[in-house]
Amino acid sequence: MTESRPGSGGRRGRQARLTVRSQAQQKRARVVWPGLEGGIYKPLSQRDVERIHEGALRILAGVGMGGATPEIIELARAKGLEVTDDQRIRFPAAYIDDVVAGAGRNFILYGRDRAHDLDISGSKVHYGTAGAAVSVPDFETGKYRESRLLDIYDFGRLVDRLPNIHWFGRTVVPTELEGGETMDVNIVYAAAAATQKHVAAGFTCAEGIYAAVQLFDMILGGEGRFAEQPCCSVYCTGVVPPLRYGELSLDVAVAAARVGMPVDFIIAAQAGATAPASLAGALVQTTAEGLGGVALVNLVKPGHPTIFSNWPFASDLRTGSFSGGGPEEALLNAASAQIANFYDLPSGVACSMTDSKLPDAQSGYEKAMTSLLTGLSGANLIHEAAGMQASLLGCSHEALVIDSEMLGNALRAVRGIEVTDETLSVEVIEEVVKGAGHFLGHEQTLTLMETEYIYPDLGDRERPVTWEERGSLDIRARAHERVREILSSHYPEYIDPAVDAKIRDAFDIRLAPEALKPGGGRW
Amino acid sequence: MTESRPGSGGRRGRQARLTVRSQAQQKRARVVWPGLEGGIYKPLSQRDVERIHEGALRILAGVGMGGATPEIIELARAKGLEVTDDQRIRFPAAYIDDVVAGAGRNFILYGRDRAHDLDISGSKVHYGTAGAAVSVPDFETGKYRESRLLDIYDFGRLVDRLPNIHWFGRTVVPTELEGGETMDVNIVYAAAAATQKHVAAGFTCAEGIYAAVQLFDMILGGEGRFAEQPCCSVYCTGVVPPLRYGELSLDVAVAAARVGMPVDFIIAAQAGATAPASLAGALVQTTAEGLGGVALVNLVKPGHPTIFSNWPFASDLRTGSFSGGGPEEALLNAASAQIANFYDLPSGVACSMTDSKLPDAQSGYEKAMTSLLTGLSGANLIHEAAGMQASLLGCSHEALVIDSEMLGNALRAVRGIEVTDETLSVEVIEEVVKGAGHFLGHEQTLTLMETEYIYPDLGDRERPVTWEERGSLDIRARAHERVREILSSHYPEYIDPAVDAKIRDAFDIRLAPEALKPGGGRW
Repeated sequence: MTESRPGSGGRRGRQARLTVRSQAQQKRARVVWPGLEGGIYKPLSQRDVERIHEGALRILAGVGMGGATPEIIELARAKGLEVTDDQRIRFPAAYIDDVVAGAGRNFILYGRDRAHDLDISGSKVHYGTAGAAVSVPDFETGKYRESRLLDIYDFGRLVDRLPNIHWFGRTVVPTELEGGETMDVNIVYAAAAATQKHVAAGFTCAEGIYAAVQLFDMILGGEGRFAEQPCCSVYCTGVVPPLRYGELSLDVAVAAARVGMPVDFIIAAQAGATAPASLAGALVQTTAEGLGGVALVNLVKPGHPTIFSNWPFASDLRTGSFSGGGPEEALLNAASAQIANFYDLPSGVACSMTDSKLPDAQSGYEKAMTSLLTGLSGANLIHEAAGMQASLLGCSHEALVIDSEMLGNALRAVRGIEVTDETLSVEVIEEVVKGAGHFLGHEQTLTLMETEYIYPDLGDRERPVTWEERGSLDIRARAHERVREILSSHYPEYIDPAVDAKIRDAFDIRLAPEALKPGGGRW
Repeated sequence: MTESRPGSGGRRGRQARLTVRSQAQQKRARVVWPGLEGGIYKPLSQRDVERIHEGALRILAGVGMGGATPEIIELARAKGLEVTDDQRIRFPAAYIDDVVAGAGRNFILYGRDRAHDLDISGSKVHYGTAGAAVSVPDFETGKYRESRLLDIYDFGRLVDRLPNIHWFGRTVVPTELEGGETMDVNIVYAAAAATQKHVAAGFTCAEGIYAAVQLFDMILGGEGRFAEQPCCSVYCTGVVPPLRYGELSLDVAVAAARVGMPVDFIIAAQAGATAPASLAGALVQTTAEGLGGVALVNLVKPGHPTIFSNWPFASDLRTGSFSGGGPEEALLNAASAQIANFYDLPSGVACSMTDSKLPDAQSGYEKAMTSLLTGLSGANLIHEAAGMQASLLGCSHEALVIDSEMLGNALRAVRGIEVTDETLSVEVIEEVVKGAGHFLGHEQTLTLMETEYIYPDLGDRERPVTWEERGSLDIRARAHERVREILSSHYPEYIDPAVDAKIRDAFDIRLAPEALKPGGGRW
């Protein structure tokens, strides 16, 4: 329970950390990179954080957590925890202190390509996709339609090419499939075929977890390989707020802990509906739930890599509906990251959501405010960070591309202002005032060109007349063409054909091989 | 030179402050209000700020400021300041310390309607328009055309109806008029006819300042009334960077100081062109220039209400062109506010600019990042905050309406999270867990509905199917209709007809009386 930034430690080997460090050094030649250190924005005072912490402890020791499975209750009793008559587990403050002290921290979320490893320590910031949207604005018509398995493959291919989306979490559910092992393994397969970035997925059953491990072992080259390089983590929405564990998700979490798959233990309470309407109150409850989640995973496997992934959602209190784009969402999630950093726990939040149905100005400003403040607050994993529209009901191709560019800007802001004798430039200023009178051709200007400023790729900086000559397009129209370019050309062969054949023998893979190859006119 | 927030003091009367306070109390029933206290986001460490300050002092004492008029050089010599052979004024560190200590602070920027008074003290945040754009995307065709005097009147009417734009600064120049007293007085007249919020304008000559005072005296009811309630301030871009005063602007600043018109002393240096490309270096130079500006006004009239209005702009270093939408702009201007707060000087910055030509997603995220970070950093006046497109070359009707809504979100984020025993809600949580199981109908939820959450007006929160049924409009299309509604109906009579006739006798007013009345089919 400290705000200090751990400089060492970690549960994985020294070699892994060295690799990450060397990659980080290479990346420093660029303007932004994954894992920039956040934490400069703290929406809460230190005393506010302590009061929220104290409130959460009181809740956990008082009403505690309901909904535990018999297996969990057994483990809790074995640890000496009190289970009430109505089967609620009470966690005393000292027990939670011990859980936090012993929890997994400073670990790597592996990419299949190690260049995409994510260093989950300190306040290092990463943006990625997530979600369980059920619809997609159709690429050609813009009309909302049901999401399908093939969409996951396509969104994965886009993410694979977008530099500021650091991992690929499933954004939509394949509505043509029913929950169960087959759905779980197909989602993971579609993601793994599309990108070698770290993959995150929801699982509907423990069998899905075991199947995913088997699938990744095959892709990575043999049994046990996934355990060495767990390149997939599980979204586990393990709490049904207020303050109840969700039975099905618990089974998934337990299975993940047993096979060594990192657990993103998500609290998705909604202020004003399943949590208090007051922002501070919502943080008290969700902090309690998040700690309850970490405690649960640690009952099964102490020190297992677990993300304190508190995504405090907001309601539109006029309707009770979830709303993702308001500024309260930015405050809640930035505060959530601050609280996780107070515990020095790996943190996940949700941001860059919008209630708008398409990437318009509303979408732009709603996403920008939430993604920027969570980045500045130093969340390790900022979920839902790209593509999501319609209060998380839809994922848009164009939005993914636009949001990656926006997240580059957010990362540049996270990087901040470097103040050194050299950057202060006193001599340069004096020299220019006495000499050229401007800095345009100055050596410092040329040197800083590729490191100090980020340049838009899709964003427009033309003069109005040039912009009009080129058709007066908005960024959505330009993104539309970029999507078509990427998806009509980027068919990576990330799964060796021989392995792919074996995977198809072992599992009921629903994406036909020809769907993963160019041609067919789909794009 | 302190970061403390002054709780008292001020140059205007006690009554004026009491009025502001009582208005503030009334506003507290709302979700956001003008003058929310910022300052929670500090992009620089305290030591970084000190180093920038030290660099600025070294510059001012070394190369100093060039370009002063003979009148200013005379005043400088009388104060014992050294003037070099090439006519540069050197300001020793101790002199600057004294200037900062004695500078005007804690004053009111008056509205004509006192409900629009702005309390310029501490880190109180206000958003307003500004600019000198030369074009407007035509309301009907969207095609960029030259801006005209009538546009100022229309933009003023929009601002008059938009709650989160707290004053009206001229956004465009009337390209049909030549600079001089007639242009100056016509801009002020168009603004005064459109809104009773505080007006800010650029002036091309000292005569324009005197004419504006005469005009406001007539509107306010008699000679000397403007001096009692200076409801107009002057944008004075008094420095031609690097480190030279601009002769023409100096005459305007001197005239304003003499008639009691608050001076917004703007530094508009451009990193990479007229200031160093390194962000820290740009801050050193512009801080020196800003202090040089405050020193200048205080040479003429010690303690005169003067805004340390440092707007560090950024270049696209690939072209050398000004770029308003990048994240460097957010960092620079937030840092500028932090530096002004370090001096406890009234602060102005420029933000919410975009390089996009229309209010699209790029416009949304570029504006959001810059306006949010400057708000959180506690700038007193955030200029250019609404309507501006195309790297400040154009002002858009729809953008004004959209941006006011976005700024409401920024203000909600500035307001932050209130942590009290009551908001922590521990008892409420326990009660709900043991009882209803949700918070939807809870008394706390209903109580907080109108104070904790901000609701969109133009922003869309419908379900996808409802949104499609209503035509699948983006926010730009909705804003378009809102603009038409306002401008076809809101023709306020803020200038008494009898007074208007006298104004038209006294000045060459180019807006015909019928242009300020409904009908004529213009909207």
